[in-house]
Amino acid sequence: MKKIGVLTTGGDAPGMNAAIRAVVRTAISFGMEVVGIEKGYSGLCDRSFVKLTSRSVSGIINEAGTFLKTKRFPEFKESEVRKKCYKNLLDESIEGLVVIGGDGSARGAYQLSSDFDFPVVLIPASIDNDLYGTDFTVGFDTAVNTAVSAVDKIRDTATSHERTFVVEVMGREKGNLAIEVALACGAEIVIVPEVKMKRDEIVSLLKEQERKGKTSSIIILAEGAGKAPELTEWLQGKLPERQIRYSVLGYIQRGGSPTYLTRVLAAQLGAAAVEALQKGKYPLMAGVRGEEIVYVPLSDVVSRSKDIPHKHLEIIRNMAI
Amino acid sequence: MKKIGVLTTGGDAPGMNAAIRAVVRTAISFGMEVVGIEKGYSGLCDRSFVKLTSRSVSGIINEAGTFLKTKRFPEFKESEVRKKCYKNLLDESIEGLVVIGGDGSARGAYQLSSDFDFPVVLIPASIDNDLYGTDFTVGFDTAVNTAVSAVDKIRDTATSHERTFVVEVMGREKGNLAIEVALACGAEIVIVPEVKMKRDEIVSLLKEQERKGKTSSIIILAEGAGKAPELTEWLQGKLPERQIRYSVLGYIQRGGSPTYLTRVLAAQLGAAAVEALQKGKYPLMAGVRGEEIVYVPLSDVVSRSKDIPHKHLEIIRNMAI
Amino acid sequence: MKKIGVLTTGGDAPGMNAAIRAVVRTAISFGMEVVGIEKGYSGLCDRSFVKLTSRSVSGIINEAGTFLKTKRFPEFKESEVRKKCYKNLLDESIEGLVVIGGDGSARGAYQLSSDFDFPVVLIPASIDNDLYGTDFTVGFDTAVNTAVSAVDKIRDTATSHERTFVVEVMGREKGNLAIEVALACGAEIVIVPEVKMKRDEIVSLLKEQERKGKTSSIIILAEGAGKAPELTEWLQGKLPERQIRYSVLGYIQRGGSPTYLTRVLAAQLGAAAVEALQKGKYPLMAGVRGEEIVYVPLSDVVSRSKDIPHKHLEIIRNMAI
Amino acid sequence: MKKIGVLTTGGDAPGMNAAIRAVVRTAISFGMEVVGIEKGYSGLCDRSFVKLTSRSVSGIINEAGTFLKTKRFPEFKESEVRKKCYKNLLDESIEGLVVIGGDGSARGAYQLSSDFDFPVVLIPASIDNDLYGTDFTVGFDTAVNTAVSAVDKIRDTATSHERTFVVEVMGREKGNLAIEVALACGAEIVIVPEVKMKRDEIVSLLKEQERKGKTSSIIILAEGAGKAPELTEWLQGKLPERQIRYSVLGYIQRGGSPTYLTRVLAAQLGAAAVEALQKGKYPLMAGVRGEEIVYVPLSDVVSRSKDIPHKHLEIIRNMAI
Repeated sequence: MKKIGVLTTGGDAPGMNAAIRAVVRTAISFGMEVVGIEKGYSGLCDRSFVKLTSRSVSGIINEAGTFLKTKRFPEFKESEVRKKCYKNLLDESIEGLVVIGGDGSARGAYQLSSDFDFPVVLIPASIDNDLYGTDFTVGFDTAVNTAVSAVDKIRDTATSHERTFVVEVMGREKGNLAIEVALACGAEIVIVPEVKMKRDEIVSLLKEQERKGKTSSIIILAEGAGKAPELTEWLQGKLPERQIRYSVLGYIQRGGSPTYLTRVLAAQLGAAAVEALQKGKYPLMAGVRGEEIVYVPLSDVVSRSKDIPHKHLEIIRNMAI
Repeated sequence: MKKIGVLTTGGDAPGMNAAIRAVVRTAISFGMEVVGIEKGYSGLCDRSFVKLTSRSVSGIINEAGTFLKTKRFPEFKESEVRKKCYKNLLDESIEGLVVIGGDGSARGAYQLSSDFDFPVVLIPASIDNDLYGTDFTVGFDTAVNTAVSAVDKIRDTATSHERTFVVEVMGREKGNLAIEVALACGAEIVIVPEVKMKRDEIVSLLKEQERKGKTSSIIILAEGAGKAPELTEWLQGKLPERQIRYSVLGYIQRGGSPTYLTRVLAAQLGAAAVEALQKGKYPLMAGVRGEEIVYVPLSDVVSRSKDIPHKHLEIIRNMAI
Repeated sequence: MKKIGVLTTGGDAPGMNAAIRAVVRTAISFGMEVVGIEKGYSGLCDRSFVKLTSRSVSGIINEAGTFLKTKRFPEFKESEVRKKCYKNLLDESIEGLVVIGGDGSARGAYQLSSDFDFPVVLIPASIDNDLYGTDFTVGFDTAVNTAVSAVDKIRDTATSHERTFVVEVMGREKGNLAIEVALACGAEIVIVPEVKMKRDEIVSLLKEQERKGKTSSIIILAEGAGKAPELTEWLQGKLPERQIRYSVLGYIQRGGSPTYLTRVLAAQLGAAAVEALQKGKYPLMAGVRGEEIVYVPLSDVVSRSKDIPHKHLEIIRNMAI
Repeated sequence: MKKIGVLTTGGDAPGMNAAIRAVVRTAISFGMEVVGIEKGYSGLCDRSFVKLTSRSVSGIINEAGTFLKTKRFPEFKESEVRKKCYKNLLDESIEGLVVIGGDGSARGAYQLSSDFDFPVVLIPASIDNDLYGTDFTVGFDTAVNTAVSAVDKIRDTATSHERTFVVEVMGREKGNLAIEVALACGAEIVIVPEVKMKRDEIVSLLKEQERKGKTSSIIILAEGAGKAPELTEWLQGKLPERQIRYSVLGYIQRGGSPTYLTRVLAAQLGAAAVEALQKGKYPLMAGVRGEEIVYVPLSDVVSRSKDIPHKHLEIIRNMAI
């Protein structure tokens, strides 16, 4: 393989730049050329190509976001669009593609690879940690730490005012981020899409904790399991003597300089992705299991789903006393 | 003066603990005893008193919130309630009071002092920097830095996706925080209660900036000047080809370890407040003007209002090119 | 088991407080009483005991250091001292002990347990990640992130001045921290005790990187592999046209609010340690392997040594182009 | 004035990029062209010029260091070298120059302006806050906050181990940074070049504080007032029962994303510097006094010296009880 392409797609995640850097430098160390494709699949369609060298990726390992930019591009689901993209790859003599992105990106990568038997490897990058086959996605560790710092700040004001706070974190379909944030912040309650929780149960938990001497509480709510303003209003109705407030953390969870683990994972998976292409192995996702780097067939990634850490939910409950 | 009281009241602000520490240790160095009054004016009414020593305030200079806790207590507007509080002060042999708080706290402090000719000095502590007579309030510098870090993170994702963001920051009546955040983040537009801005003007500014090559934008909105979701929806209607998103920073702006300036200001004003009491000067606010510590009559503080930095607005406009 | 003790010993590490919290609350949820032992084995010898409740550990999950304090106590190697400690445990009706600490603590824990067949479980807490049998120690993730933030700052000034920097990080016997910091910061060279590196090789690497266009460089040096001032002077002698500077990160690496992973690990291992005691399993270390919590015999922990991540060294080399 | 130049020189300071941005955009808003001069006076001598547009300074407001790079260039003291620089300015049709830097940069700027009656305005940028005529230099607020965060971390480990720490901070000739760090961290003792302090006094202060119940201590030492390792050894000799450690913060104090105040000051002074050039006023420094932007003759800046905040020293002493 003489020339490969790399793109970032879908929602941005911290560490995407570190992953691009690892892809570029590994490829160059193998004697390959690297083409950066701007704005994800959209740029692949528009031939938004830029040559990348070792110096192109200097000083970006600690930068948030993605210098190649990213874009949601639903048109990529259309067979004609993918055909055009494939033609662009051939015209540019790109023989393999590294896709850096999350859930939707995986599906796009799998389709492109399947349609044309084209070598594609995915680096899972997402703040949701929602991809099957890898313990962590690039960006998750950073996003959790960002959310944890924010909740720590909210805890400061909750304690000073003896208030209850509902904090809504990202996670439209998955509660992984919410659970880790809750465990790390010592939240009293966590509400995620995967676990049914009756609202009355929240009320009785809060009352029980109050009896045990807790004067303030934090409830972590995954956005896919409810909306903070609405839940807060409902709770306030049930517990009128309490001061209940809410906060929606929102987009800050996507930004920030990547943490060490995000950067290390980006470096490992960037190197592994290029190695797979070099060996002609595809369509795969490069992932991590414990301390091992693993390759997972993209067909598994797109068809299976990652479970939440149920034991962490149990610890959260046991600690809230 | 042999014994003084200290309390924190109203919305919490970073640096309140550092201010308590300075009050306690300065008073002790003057040979006074210090009584901590918990939960603000509410605890003064309920006689929630605790003796404070040098060791009581060890290790709190860098802690967020207030270990004496705080509470909004509208009942303090009632003359009868204040009379009860005054009696509690006498019963406890407290001869002077340091009140740490913001706008509403100033009014309470002024009333208590006026009603009974009781020695009260205010340390202005608020994330809004909205008190007349002082360049800065304790907590403002920290809150702006917290908001700036958050907006930096949002800028990361805005740039990667080429999006426009409306970021709502605290400031129900005052735009001071919003203006400083906007200037520090290089925001393209800032909207504050003090300056009328036609919505069409926002649209034309965004279009003009786009012509100059800006591919993403940040609009900082003080909460008193509009609501982010509503403004975003309106803008999206006018600029359908853009991706416009919003974020409400909320309570994180109140928390966090105080910055150096917040701590230094807390130390200076804590010392100054006790000195004023010792010299029998009241009712005053201890404040800062440039590098000088000043005393401002509380009657001025409660009757006059602080202006916004208009020159900063001009710089923001000139920089948004 | 009705009553257990918990102590922190050896060098402090971020997350020790979170671990104590998890031990206390898990034990209470099992119906046990918990005794906090201050200043490690030293306090065990001096009967420095304090009763711990759920409220004793409120609000400490995000605090650095250890509220039980810690102390190096070489006297614990003496059989007579351990005998006295054992007697103190019996006198206090403590039936099991959770030791939170690193390498030396493990040896002490193993000896105490072996001498008297006393139930002891270790929670590995150390910024060095140097214990056999666990992927991570409590505190390591935080320390690496702290060091990475510091090196990022040094990189800022290195780039602006086009300088070469030698940054000495903690690690007297092990290079684990140095390697992770180097990989995460994109350091050009890492020097660790486990890998012999000729000094001339450093010079030739720097020259080669310069030829490739690098205008500044970062060398990460584990303290056990050399001293930054001395190495810097030597390098400056060999490369007189360069501006070479050094920085010794030192004790900042031990402090700071724990990161999410440190807190989650502390919670998991705290819970697991108490579960082991409850089930009568000892002498063990609770550790983590991938996503699994594991128990490792203390005899293995004290007799075997953890390897460094050799693949990470390879990635560092490949990225430095 | 149709065309101006801008350069950064001397030691780098956080906010230099924000200052360049403000200079560039203000000049453009006045209809001027802007030439960036790389590596300070050195690049002026070598004609290392680059055209700057609004887009050249996008996204740098929050970046550490200086993208124009900086260099110490003692040759600029030679009259012949300055003559060459002046000729380069004329050849490039540069009619005015903004110099961003500290103490030494001020002298160079003054000489260049005096030699050839050339319009030069200085923006004071230095982590030392050591320039006469301005309350703050660009970068000082950031550097103090960075040092404060580091000392907070060291306090964590000092408290856990009940140790005494000597922390050496930057400041070869001036104690401004050391004093602010000490006040903000609640340090027990601060040692600066401007105030003679007998070493025996340090010992007696530490002993007195111990009697008052302090179990750990922080001593902040400006580098110009002694060396941490040496002082530590001496203290350890005098107080053998204590555990005394040291830390040298070093270069981390120069890096990091600028704080809000640093950015705002950079914006204000950048705008003011260009306004002065436009109005034909020079040689000046743009500075800040309270909330006012002021112009100070460079002759005063280079001949007078800034005092330390003596009142802060007094507060530090009073708080250390």
